[in-house]
Amino acid sequence: MYVAVNAAMSVDGKLASREREQLAISGPEDFARVERLRAEYDAIMVGVGTVLADDPSLTLDDPAAHGEPPADHPTRIVADSRARTPPDARVLDETTETYVLVSEAVPTDHVDSLERAGVSILEAGTSQVDLAAALDRLEATGIDSLLVEGGGELIFSLVAAGLVDELSVFVGSMLIGGRDAPTLADGTGFTEDYPSVNLQSVSELDDGVLLEYEVDCENP
Amino acid sequence: MYVAVNAAMSVDGKLASREREQLAISGPEDFARVERLRAEYDAIMVGVGTVLADDPSLTLDDPAAHGEPPADHPTRIVADSRARTPPDARVLDETTETYVLVSEAVPTDHVDSLERAGVSILEAGTSQVDLAAALDRLEATGIDSLLVEGGGELIFSLVAAGLVDELSVFVGSMLIGGRDAPTLADGTGFTEDYPSVNLQSVSELDDGVLLEYEVDCENP
Repeated sequence: MYVAVNAAMSVDGKLASREREQLAISGPEDFARVERLRAEYDAIMVGVGTVLADDPSLTLDDPAAHGEPPADHPTRIVADSRARTPPDARVLDETTETYVLVSEAVPTDHVDSLERAGVSILEAGTSQVDLAAALDRLEATGIDSLLVEGGGELIFSLVAAGLVDELSVFVGSMLIGGRDAPTLADGTGFTEDYPSVNLQSVSELDDGVLLEYEVDCENP
Repeated sequence: MYVAVNAAMSVDGKLASREREQLAISGPEDFARVERLRAEYDAIMVGVGTVLADDPSLTLDDPAAHGEPPADHPTRIVADSRARTPPDARVLDETTETYVLVSEAVPTDHVDSLERAGVSILEAGTSQVDLAAALDRLEATGIDSLLVEGGGELIFSLVAAGLVDELSVFVGSMLIGGRDAPTLADGTGFTEDYPSVNLQSVSELDDGVLLEYEVDCENP
């Protein structure tokens, strides 16, 4: 499966404040770019932290704007080891299909309430979602391309598992600061064999810069 | 006083790994740029965390390379509330003068051993260095321009105090990751009135990108 990561961060690499407040890091040009990007992918994926902090719908703003016939909304995928996604989260609305990826450590009642909300549950991994296995099973359902929109925990896990093919980062012209603020790649971090990325393009957009990288799709 | 911040970070905003391991984030073109930049400033400043982690000398590599007569080594300044800089740190060698900025909370014996090492101690602030007051007093000694090379705690404090005029960031083409890894701006972080910066130039350098910003020099 082809996996692209797209995110907007401050100059100091933060996705949000330490209070997880969602900020307007990018502007209209970047929003339009992300809308076009979403229409090109079979599925959009976020981690449960992003669902809990921002409650995004992850749907296209205007399917008809992408041509005739209108674009399909991509399938939505939430990486959520313990199924903490609230049953009334916008990402579970009826606009399109949603998969919640859970681990074996998931409480049964969480699964039950999500299944009642119409969600497809996909279990892989013991205490954490086994992302490689989960993506293989998603591919078997016909999902060949995935756009990951955060947060930093999921992005780190995907990079660490060698699953990312490309990375687009909009660097907004602001500072957020904070040793506890979420960054583009959190998790435990690398302490050796740091993954290198290959810069493909640099372009000014809104009041910031879009950096596009190719990522070596190998386990670091 | 004119204050510029210069740093090299990974794509995800990290200055080092969570173990504070110093990494080659930039390359020869950026090293040459930083060497030229250092020669243009009256003083170079770092926080004590950078001294403890990297033991930098903060001197020019080759004063004669900057023209005739050779460039003077800039004065070195360490922000170090409790004077934890080891007396044998390279930043205290005899190449040029060094100021250690401390607070009133500094242990007397630390000050004594630094003074024996030939350091100029400048006390400002009660528990933390009062950076605005310290910079005013440095200016009174004839230091009109300051290049700050990190780390993220000092950079955040200077931005929060409205003392920064410009910011140059080399974004190296690697990922470091880690929710505990040091970033370009750490500290408590902003939760409102996020400082905005104005993008002045974007240039490809080594295998990465140099982003240069003007910073509104106002208290956020």
